[in-house]
Amino acid sequence: MTRQELTRLIRAKRSYLCIGLDTDIRKLPKHLLKAEDPVFEFNRQIIEATADLCVAYKPNIAFYEAEGPSGWVSLERTLAAIPKDCFTIADAKRGDIGNTSSLYARTFFERYAFDSVTVAPYMGKDSVTPFLEFPGKWVILLGLTSNAGSLDFQMLDVALPGHAAGEQLFEHVLHTSQRWSGPDSMMYVIGATHPELFTRVRKIVPDHFLLVPGVGAQGGDLEAISKAGMNDQVGLLVNSSRQIIYASSGEDFAEAARKEAMALQQEMSRLLDA
Amino acid sequence: MTRQELTRLIRAKRSYLCIGLDTDIRKLPKHLLKAEDPVFEFNRQIIEATADLCVAYKPNIAFYEAEGPSGWVSLERTLAAIPKDCFTIADAKRGDIGNTSSLYARTFFERYAFDSVTVAPYMGKDSVTPFLEFPGKWVILLGLTSNAGSLDFQMLDVALPGHAAGEQLFEHVLHTSQRWSGPDSMMYVIGATHPELFTRVRKIVPDHFLLVPGVGAQGGDLEAISKAGMNDQVGLLVNSSRQIIYASSGEDFAEAARKEAMALQQEMSRLLDA
Repeated sequence: MTRQELTRLIRAKRSYLCIGLDTDIRKLPKHLLKAEDPVFEFNRQIIEATADLCVAYKPNIAFYEAEGPSGWVSLERTLAAIPKDCFTIADAKRGDIGNTSSLYARTFFERYAFDSVTVAPYMGKDSVTPFLEFPGKWVILLGLTSNAGSLDFQMLDVALPGHAAGEQLFEHVLHTSQRWSGPDSMMYVIGATHPELFTRVRKIVPDHFLLVPGVGAQGGDLEAISKAGMNDQVGLLVNSSRQIIYASSGEDFAEAARKEAMALQQEMSRLLDA
Repeated sequence: MTRQELTRLIRAKRSYLCIGLDTDIRKLPKHLLKAEDPVFEFNRQIIEATADLCVAYKPNIAFYEAEGPSGWVSLERTLAAIPKDCFTIADAKRGDIGNTSSLYARTFFERYAFDSVTVAPYMGKDSVTPFLEFPGKWVILLGLTSNAGSLDFQMLDVALPGHAAGEQLFEHVLHTSQRWSGPDSMMYVIGATHPELFTRVRKIVPDHFLLVPGVGAQGGDLEAISKAGMNDQVGLLVNSSRQIIYASSGEDFAEAARKEAMALQQEMSRLLDA
């Protein structure tokens, strides 16, 4: 999916919602445990109930890996159940030396046919660029994450030769990685828990899409990050996981998920007009 | 396995060799492709041929993940084939928000029964500490990696309030993470391609074990890093992957791997006496 197609999709659906499929078998409604593949059955019903309200789905790979080999079967089935008009994100946070990153890229882009993978920047250029060699596919690089630990390293001041004032590590990651690829094949993770930093982020990456986790269970404010983060191509995918998929633990879980997704979509629709 | 047990093992086997099981199905000797599980059959023969010469095995998870669900079956069988007197490392380079890191930890420590997992530091404390909650298990945190991209961020000067001279990011990761746990449950990845930095690393983490990749195919020098990195508990696990496991692509692959492993073990034996 190209950046233009993603923007068109957002305008057509009046939504920049990404739904995180962090499907934990220990949290599934009891009645689903009888299904042959409960994780897939849960995802299938969530997708059916929400696909018109969101533009992306983001399975966090940890939840599938935790189930052993069968978890990967559930993941493959889930991907097949996502309609073609939704962008797919493997939230894997991978990154390794070049030949190994290539293999991770092949796995997520070819075997599981994801549109994008989240990648951790610590190992630098040659750990990221192998993911950029797949036409039409995207790297979503961790910039500023939504968790408390984002303060430990991402917010450090880095001293750069020739610069009187330094910048913070996450800003340097945004600057440096722009030399590897542009806004048509890279996005950045910027957590909703740092609304005050979106203006600085947009100065460095005005055109890139940002994947914004941390709205909902983690406390981020949709209106604040939308006002500060939106660009003329929209440029935002705002993720919500637990707030939507675990809205109810009963037989009405899909209906409850739809209600939560619709509340977010309606607020997004209003923010798109603002 | 405790730190004392690992040191005893190293002295008994006269080896601090870790063998990287980066088993790529595209590189297997042709005759193995007839086996029911070629990846496992390759690993089993490599392990049988080398277990007396090394103290650790390190499957890089990318290679198993790339095979789909069956790759995880091969991984589980491989773990079961590793003798109890070898330390096991899941080279996964994971790291995510707390509840997700917990799940990754459970997967590698409980489902697959690894002794340790490699973890990426970018997301900070709460992405790492969930891995530290498993008694007897280890976090191996990326400090300074062996690839060219290690220069992009890990070597940046960070400006710290109250410090006249800054330190480099990898040094700050070593310093900061020592507040999370000590040398009995944490190790660091320090690449063999930076021999000149081992003295600085040892000033910050004198007692920790270091997992050292990059000897062999990546060009690191075993003698240089051993002289600069060894402490009174040995404190080193030096990894070689491709140089050993792909020493021959013929039917003699296990025998050829044994020869390569023995050459390294004999040099290590000499360096342990020095």
